[in-house]
Parts: sequence; C-alpha cells; structure tokens
Amino acid sequence: MSDAHDAVTSEGLTIWTYDWVPEGPRGFVRDMRLRWAAEEAGLAYEVRSVAFDGRETNHLDRQPFGQVPYIVDGDIHLFESGACLLHLAGKSERLMPRQPSAAAETLQWFFAALNSIEMVSVPWWFLKLSGQDDNPLGSWLDKRLAQLESVLAGRDWLAAGRFTVADLIMADVLRIPKVRARGDRPATEAFVARVTARPAFLKAHAEQISHFTAADAAR
Amino acid sequence: MSDAHDAVTSEGLTIWTYDWVPEGPRGFVRDMRLRWAAEEAGLAYEVRSVAFDGRETNHLDRQPFGQVPYIVDGDIHLFESGACLLHLAGKSERLMPRQPSAAAETLQWFFAALNSIEMVSVPWWFLKLSGQDDNPLGSWLDKRLAQLESVLAGRDWLAAGRFTVADLIMADVLRIPKVRARGDRPATEAFVARVTARPAFLKAHAEQISHFTAADAAR
Repeated sequence: MSDAHDAVTSEGLTIWTYDWVPEGPRGFVRDMRLRWAAEEAGLAYEVRSVAFDGRETNHLDRQPFGQVPYIVDGDIHLFESGACLLHLAGKSERLMPRQPSAAAETLQWFFAALNSIEMVSVPWWFLKLSGQDDNPLGSWLDKRLAQLESVLAGRDWLAAGRFTVADLIMADVLRIPKVRARGDRPATEAFVARVTARPAFLKAHAEQISHFTAADAAR
Repeated sequence: MSDAHDAVTSEGLTIWTYDWVPEGPRGFVRDMRLRWAAEEAGLAYEVRSVAFDGRETNHLDRQPFGQVPYIVDGDIHLFESGACLLHLAGKSERLMPRQPSAAAETLQWFFAALNSIEMVSVPWWFLKLSGQDDNPLGSWLDKRLAQLESVLAGRDWLAAGRFTVADLIMADVLRIPKVRARGDRPATEAFVARVTARPAFLKAHAEQISHFTAADAAR
C-alpha cells in the first residue's frame, strides 16, 4: 500500500509506517513527525507500509527493534525518528537555521524534547498502560514539565526566534492528551496549540488518520 | 574549579560539570561522554564546574533542567549531551564519517542508543532507586537488549565498519553495571569491553574520577 504525493520518483523520499494500527494511536504513530517535517520543508515524499501484524519480526532488516518509522532517501536508509528528522532538517533551512549559534540552539532543544521530556513521558505512560496509574515517574515528569513551562513563558518558539524542528518535536511529544492533562501550564498549552495549528501539521495529521482508516476495510 | 588541558584558550571548548558528586555516580556523570569524545577527536578542552549543592536552580540560565553537562565553544552554547556530542562529531571525522550513507548509519545508531535503549534503561533504573526493584520496564529493557545483542553478534562496530560516536554513546549507555547484569549477552559484553578499552575512554574516565575525588577534601 502506498499513498501518492506530488513529484514522487522511485529515488525520492519514502517514509515507512505500519499498514494499520488500532484507533488509539492513530494520529500519534511516529511517521507523523516525518510527514509533518516533510510538509514544513516542502519536500516531496511517498508513504509506504509494512504489515502491523508480525511487526516484531517482519522488518528487522530495516529496523532492528521492529518499530516504525524508517525512511529511504536515495542511497540513505535511516531508522529512529530523531535521526530521520535531523536528516530532513539537513535538507531545509525551514526546519534548521544555518547560522551556527541558531543551529546549535535548535539542536539542544531538539534533544531536550527527546531526552529530557520524552525519556520520562513515554516510560511514565508505559507504566500507566501496565496498570501503574500512580507511578514514581509522574513526579519526575511534572518537574520537567514545570521547568519547561518556565522557559515557554518567556518565548513563542524554543530556538532561533522562529519555528524550527525543535518546536515540531517538542510539540509532538507534548501533545499526547495524557501528558497535557498533568497540570495547568498555560504557556505550554499555548505553545502546543500554536505549533499544532500549522497547516503542515494539520495536513500530515489528516493524512495519517486516512492512511490507517483506509486499512480498516481490509481487516 | 577547572582542570587544565593542553592548548586551552579562553575561546576554546569548555565542558561544564558539577564540582563534586557522591561516589556512586563518579565515572558515570555525563560530562564523561563529552570528555571521551573530545579525547577521541584530539580536541583541546577545559573542564569547569558548577556547584553540585544548589544544582536545581544555580545554573538554570545555562541548563533549564538543572543538569550537566553543558558546553561553551566559542560563540556556541549547548546543553543536552546528545546535542553536545553531535556538535563535537561535526568537528571530527574520527567521531562521524563524512560519507553520507556512513554518516546516516552513524546517526541512526547514535539515536538508537539514546532513544531505544537509554529511554528504557534510565527510567528502569530510576524505578529501582525508587524501591521498585521488579518493575514493568525490566521486560521492555530485556527485549531491547536482546534485539541489540542480535545486531552486535554480527559486527564489531555499530556503523560504518569502524569506531564512531554511535559506539561511544551506546557503550556509555550499556556500561552501567545494573544494565549489564540483566542477562548473558556475550556480543554486547564484548562490544562494551572493546569500546571501553580505548585509551580515550580510559583517560576521560580517570580524569572524571580525579575531578570529583579532588573535591572531597573541600567538603
């Protein structure tokens, strides 16, 4: 299965995701990050699917942890959404400024989203799903979110005074409903609303939902 | 407090860490990653300290989550060890190959260390420290470590057929004794032994231990 996008060639950018997922994760599967980034950058891309059933073992040659997304871009093969995003950022100044100190600021906030926020929020959520509704990672997460709220209270964008891939990944980490529900953080809420109102997000989001919904009939 | 290294100028690379930590984390505080990378790359650097006491608030202007390390390199200011490592990798082909597909392979494994392994191992360890010795993250961690073992059984280095910053960060994530103790994974064990036998690791490790030990007398 593939969704066609304009100006696609066989050597172009291909984003791989599952052919189907249950309703819960639709709109949140991490090919979202890459679709969104490609839309922001104006990059042509194609979306292709690997089977959700058998995912633990059916694409280990492409992704050794059995996950999605992974991309192919000409001779480049890449897994890990963080690595894929930096690859796309290297293709577009819209995602990553070229001026060195602005690029460094973007890079540090990009990693902060993944390694200071998501490194806590994802395991916290995993424990909730495992039945530990009130788990010790909750207070750690609250502390990090409060520190981030202080930062966002003073600026509209994380780095370089404008939208970058750091905002994209941070908003993608923060927009999980259960993470947003953890407290009253008006600056963070406004940040997530601001970033996810972007046309590129809305297009990517709608297309991911369509991609998974279209597969319902075949199951 | 600062430790002098050769050829340091005031505009050179400075790695910031705490002035002191308790014995447990000595050798593991994350300035290790940056000292090690700088040694591998042959980069001159200086190590400077912020006070461990009051760390939650005494350097929020430099690191908004109150952590270390952070670096200054000329006009560049950076926090997040992942971001700092990629900055250093940009300065040395010894850390990151310049050929595009080899660079991409290095980047994906760099992120795999941080976001597929450490994103599970650090919260798992946090829960252990919180008294949850047998917590649900353990089986998730074991699954990831088993998948990694399959990869390492087939190669000596993660990317590009030689040592890169991907090996550095993966070995740094894996060398935590409690993570290593989680199972019999001979290829992983050999990998960690191979990478941490490098002179650059041994020098950086000895110097971090000395840095913190030297501060004992002042307390």
